[in-house]
Amino acid sequence: MPKCRICGRKAVVYLRHSRLWLCSEHFNEFIENRVMRTIKRYNLIRKGDRVLLGLSGGKDSVVLAHILSKLRESIGFKLYLAHINLGIGEYSEKNAEVAKKISEKTNAPLIILDLRKILGVGIPELALKTRRPPCSVCGVVKRYLLNALAVELKANSIATGHNLDDMATFILKEFLVQNLEQIPKLAPRIEGVKDYLVAKIKPLYETYEEDIKKYAELNNILYVEEKCPLADETTLTWHLKKHLRDLEYRFPGLTIGFIRRLVKNIEKYPKPGDTIRRCSICGMPSSGKICSFCKITEKALGKPMGPHAREYIKEIVDKSIID
Amino acid sequence: MPKCRICGRKAVVYLRHSRLWLCSEHFNEFIENRVMRTIKRYNLIRKGDRVLLGLSGGKDSVVLAHILSKLRESIGFKLYLAHINLGIGEYSEKNAEVAKKISEKTNAPLIILDLRKILGVGIPELALKTRRPPCSVCGVVKRYLLNALAVELKANSIATGHNLDDMATFILKEFLVQNLEQIPKLAPRIEGVKDYLVAKIKPLYETYEEDIKKYAELNNILYVEEKCPLADETTLTWHLKKHLRDLEYRFPGLTIGFIRRLVKNIEKYPKPGDTIRRCSICGMPSSGKICSFCKITEKALGKPMGPHAREYIKEIVDKSIID
Repeated sequence: MPKCRICGRKAVVYLRHSRLWLCSEHFNEFIENRVMRTIKRYNLIRKGDRVLLGLSGGKDSVVLAHILSKLRESIGFKLYLAHINLGIGEYSEKNAEVAKKISEKTNAPLIILDLRKILGVGIPELALKTRRPPCSVCGVVKRYLLNALAVELKANSIATGHNLDDMATFILKEFLVQNLEQIPKLAPRIEGVKDYLVAKIKPLYETYEEDIKKYAELNNILYVEEKCPLADETTLTWHLKKHLRDLEYRFPGLTIGFIRRLVKNIEKYPKPGDTIRRCSICGMPSSGKICSFCKITEKALGKPMGPHAREYIKEIVDKSIID
Repeated sequence: MPKCRICGRKAVVYLRHSRLWLCSEHFNEFIENRVMRTIKRYNLIRKGDRVLLGLSGGKDSVVLAHILSKLRESIGFKLYLAHINLGIGEYSEKNAEVAKKISEKTNAPLIILDLRKILGVGIPELALKTRRPPCSVCGVVKRYLLNALAVELKANSIATGHNLDDMATFILKEFLVQNLEQIPKLAPRIEGVKDYLVAKIKPLYETYEEDIKKYAELNNILYVEEKCPLADETTLTWHLKKHLRDLEYRFPGLTIGFIRRLVKNIEKYPKPGDTIRRCSICGMPSSGKICSFCKITEKALGKPMGPHAREYIKEIVDKSIID
């Protein structure tokens, strides 16, 4: 029976990437330390920060909520949770339920933005009416609403649950299509612009997806296991992730080694050429004259809904008793 | 029964990457045109050039010998074949036999360099005595001897049979280990330095390995199918190639698209920092004071054998009746 490398008690987890058997207590310590080190190494959260975490209800953001709530005291920051109800039927309802429970468990205030209340429609209708892939529309909507909310909350950063496997896959994909300029945008921290674009941080940048799953299991953390019914499992990204997992299995530590070297090299990649402008309709960040959110909503609903969404979010923040 | 897209006759080959059924004649034309376009696009061979092809006896270099011998007239260059007998038992003997036959078939003069005649030992002994992986020692030896021979022959370039899958795999591997400076060295043409370093060209840079196999089959081209008995099939490179093949199957054209975009981007990668010096013992190219060939032979045999190898090659070239 394998024993914990730290304390010698019965081990319950084997971390292949680190060739390490650990008991449940020291596994938790290992993962929490890793997230802490990621935060320190890349300067993700500073003392006194207001951090808004995008909480989908899936394992990554839920585990991140738990870990950040634990680290809150020692670093000294405020944690807020944001859940966007995307209006994807029962799937979205389940996620919203989980989000509420996580907020109670972690004792972090939760703001729910309900897409159907803001726009009258959910992601399925937006995708159908704009004839765009649901994942692409969903990405635009989530980025927009999270940023708008973070601006109103005067948050210092938006944290997301992207894990090591996600990031390595995205980077490989950009390399395969040779969008080198996109690679620096996949760093653990992306700076914002005062007043309208909040910095993005990824505290699980160096944590394996498998470890996140184990952490949730071992700590009986509730999350939505179900995949989004609109997700497309035929994409290059999806297949790349599978292949990367197989390579990692044969060459343990490959993924973390890759990502750490990549971050060290990040200055060697060509800088993104697109300057960040402000949408002429809603004032939010945009690469062109009009932001994607205003474009998509105009196409789907006949009217760009950026200003309305911002107004809606302002009211919610005003009404809530968040300090 | 599928028909040839060009002539309507019975097709014998399906090119998945181009969604194309072809008859044997038009398949040959397709492949030869592709190699011709690669040569033109990257300026690999110019009129009047003397091209030395490294002929191992495997499918890639053998097929390249056939195609280059066909293109010889229209471009107007001279083709020489070089085979290095690496002293790996029966495997090497088989390869040497094939090389001789290919030389007859293609009507291109062949020079055989026999490692056991030059050094008294083959790759297995060199690897054992230096405690280096055989593939690494073999790479050093082949590069050294081919370049030394090309210098004596006053060749304009050394052609090798590296195919599209090889190159894409090597590049992916350098990306995963983040040796970005190595990526420009994997371009279709690497310039030489007058008098001691001959340019390297890869005319099969845009040709899929599978197509090369089919070309050999359809044209009854003899080659050694056996893998080198010293080859290591547990390396990252070996696994990456398998994964890339699987991705290509799902996303036909992925590999060629990747490699073409990469070559277009090549200026965006950091330049290799190492300057090419000359070995203080033999005068051949080296990144340090002493070249790898002199180092390896000194370690294995007690004496750096660069000068002797060069002398040996000079004599062979003087004795041969190559113009």
